[in-house]
Amino acid sequence: MRICKSSFRYINTPLQRCYSMTPSDYTVLISKAEVQDFCERCMKKVGTKPSHAQSLAKVLVEGDFRGHYSHGFNRLEMYVKDVEKKVCEINQEPKLVKETESTAYVDGMNVLGPVVGNFSMDIAIAKAKKTGIALGISFTNTSPLVYANRSKKASIGTNPIAFAAPTKDPKNEFVLDMATSAVAVGKIEMCKRKGHSLPAGWGADKEGKLTTKPSEAIEGGLLPLGGAELTSGYKGTGLGMMVEMFCGILSGATYGINVRKWMNTTRPADLGQAFMAINPHMFADGFSARADDYVNMIRNLPRADEAQPVLVAGDPEREHIKEVARDGGIFYPPVLIDSLDQLADRLQVPRLKCLKRN
Amino acid sequence: MRICKSSFRYINTPLQRCYSMTPSDYTVLISKAEVQDFCERCMKKVGTKPSHAQSLAKVLVEGDFRGHYSHGFNRLEMYVKDVEKKVCEINQEPKLVKETESTAYVDGMNVLGPVVGNFSMDIAIAKAKKTGIALGISFTNTSPLVYANRSKKASIGTNPIAFAAPTKDPKNEFVLDMATSAVAVGKIEMCKRKGHSLPAGWGADKEGKLTTKPSEAIEGGLLPLGGAELTSGYKGTGLGMMVEMFCGILSGATYGINVRKWMNTTRPADLGQAFMAINPHMFADGFSARADDYVNMIRNLPRADEAQPVLVAGDPEREHIKEVARDGGIFYPPVLIDSLDQLADRLQVPRLKCLKRN
Repeated sequence: MRICKSSFRYINTPLQRCYSMTPSDYTVLISKAEVQDFCERCMKKVGTKPSHAQSLAKVLVEGDFRGHYSHGFNRLEMYVKDVEKKVCEINQEPKLVKETESTAYVDGMNVLGPVVGNFSMDIAIAKAKKTGIALGISFTNTSPLVYANRSKKASIGTNPIAFAAPTKDPKNEFVLDMATSAVAVGKIEMCKRKGHSLPAGWGADKEGKLTTKPSEAIEGGLLPLGGAELTSGYKGTGLGMMVEMFCGILSGATYGINVRKWMNTTRPADLGQAFMAINPHMFADGFSARADDYVNMIRNLPRADEAQPVLVAGDPEREHIKEVARDGGIFYPPVLIDSLDQLADRLQVPRLKCLKRN
Repeated sequence: MRICKSSFRYINTPLQRCYSMTPSDYTVLISKAEVQDFCERCMKKVGTKPSHAQSLAKVLVEGDFRGHYSHGFNRLEMYVKDVEKKVCEINQEPKLVKETESTAYVDGMNVLGPVVGNFSMDIAIAKAKKTGIALGISFTNTSPLVYANRSKKASIGTNPIAFAAPTKDPKNEFVLDMATSAVAVGKIEMCKRKGHSLPAGWGADKEGKLTTKPSEAIEGGLLPLGGAELTSGYKGTGLGMMVEMFCGILSGATYGINVRKWMNTTRPADLGQAFMAINPHMFADGFSARADDYVNMIRNLPRADEAQPVLVAGDPEREHIKEVARDGGIFYPPVLIDSLDQLADRLQVPRLKCLKRN
């Protein structure tokens, strides 16, 4: 396992509003290569090293490519500002502080998160194996947005658990990447914009009472996975705290209520991450064939509703990737592209070249 | 990480009905030492090696001691039967099949689960460190009881995640041990006995539709943590599948729908477990003090309801341990003790000596 500190930010941005659009709002088509290049040109313009700009751009493009618009282009402006406001370091590289045969403690030196993530996961993989496939796990802590069960103050980040397992057929790869909160704050914002009430179990008001009113939940807090205590919200609380133990606590980074507030850029994030890689060859032979069989087994279960296919972690993303291939690029909502045009003008870099723009 | 196969059984038993009693039903007081001894004498009587009987007894006593009656004495008769019906091996020891600096692949040889668990976790700890504290994680797969999101056939076990982190003050140790289902089947049985309807999100009927009727859920399946799709049941599905990847798939044991049914004793369980131990000394100094501070931080959050203290994983168990110390023994419901008297008579071992029995 590798532990590092970096400026990873699993938070939402003002452009999160794009996330609350419907598919028909996505009308601007841009090639994947142009999305990558635009991210790089903006980041380099504010002083980011080319290699760092490339790493960051790859992560953002991948977010959109896989259909997770909340974690893609949408966040570019936030990273530009982090560099401009010097809450990220642009002249450093991650540093290996301490290591053993099977562990590495990495100081991310407050450089851009994806740079630290690649550095750390590469070490983890190298330590786990010389060849072939690996299981990967990663965790990060983040700004407190979630109420621990029975409390009324946000103390836990959306603290995600990501786990990927290789399969014989790459189309079956199991890729789980989930917040330990019931839902992301963006989903609550979406309900607010649409005037819908919240399903019970998504959020609580500032007094810690469950609420179905989006505005009360935004003022209050997200609920942990499981929702209310009666539906096992204490389990989501436990998982969020477990992630914090692996991240803030093990790395010596900031943790719990001391993590800076969402969108704060007055001080470095000082978050913690943990990355593990496990070589299945060290255990029973034939992992990838069994994993393949298992994924198919679950996907082919009898359906509760014939119209709703049983999905395995990684399936929705594969579906989106197919759509991008079919369309020859990624569709974005105009409000996001307008905002990035303004960013381009401000930074004096060429605007995005769109394949299609209504 | 260590992977092993064993006869661990995280399932419920006919005596599960005891779990559905209220605290006032627990009127028979027995000393901890006598509970340990009774388990050992019954297991040894049916042929279990003394060291194996002791390991199993310790786990069962610990379950009751910590207040988890569903995983304690309640399961003794099941283990007795497993040995009697020869679905467990009594003349074997777990075997180290393959190892590296940081991994071990263990064949549990189908001996009693706790024997395999101790064997494997001891190797994990020894590999992780020479001295001091360690973080521990373990997983197991088990008989399918849970519906994957959108499906209508039980395919995932309650596949628990257990994680423990040491703290400076032992009273703050973080001990998470949770099924990745919304709740255990015992909680549904309890509602049935009491004539209560289920909270939405606990179970589904045999058509895969959410139900609030206990009998329909018992005929149908448990829901994954998160409940329905709208409240993120796909996350619990993903976690349950992640545990399966670590257990059945990595170890080469049985997985998914192929795991034997709940209570079946016609063939060995052939389950898989994964154990990891991490030495915090390999990372930032001062883990246990920070973990201590974090646990206190969460426990002292403002309460949503003043009467309901914010609890950290491990707190309810510590509370129960205090009660046992105060009472000088563990209280059990008479129905369980009556049943164990019958077991003692059948095995011709001395009956339980009770400190108090109404």
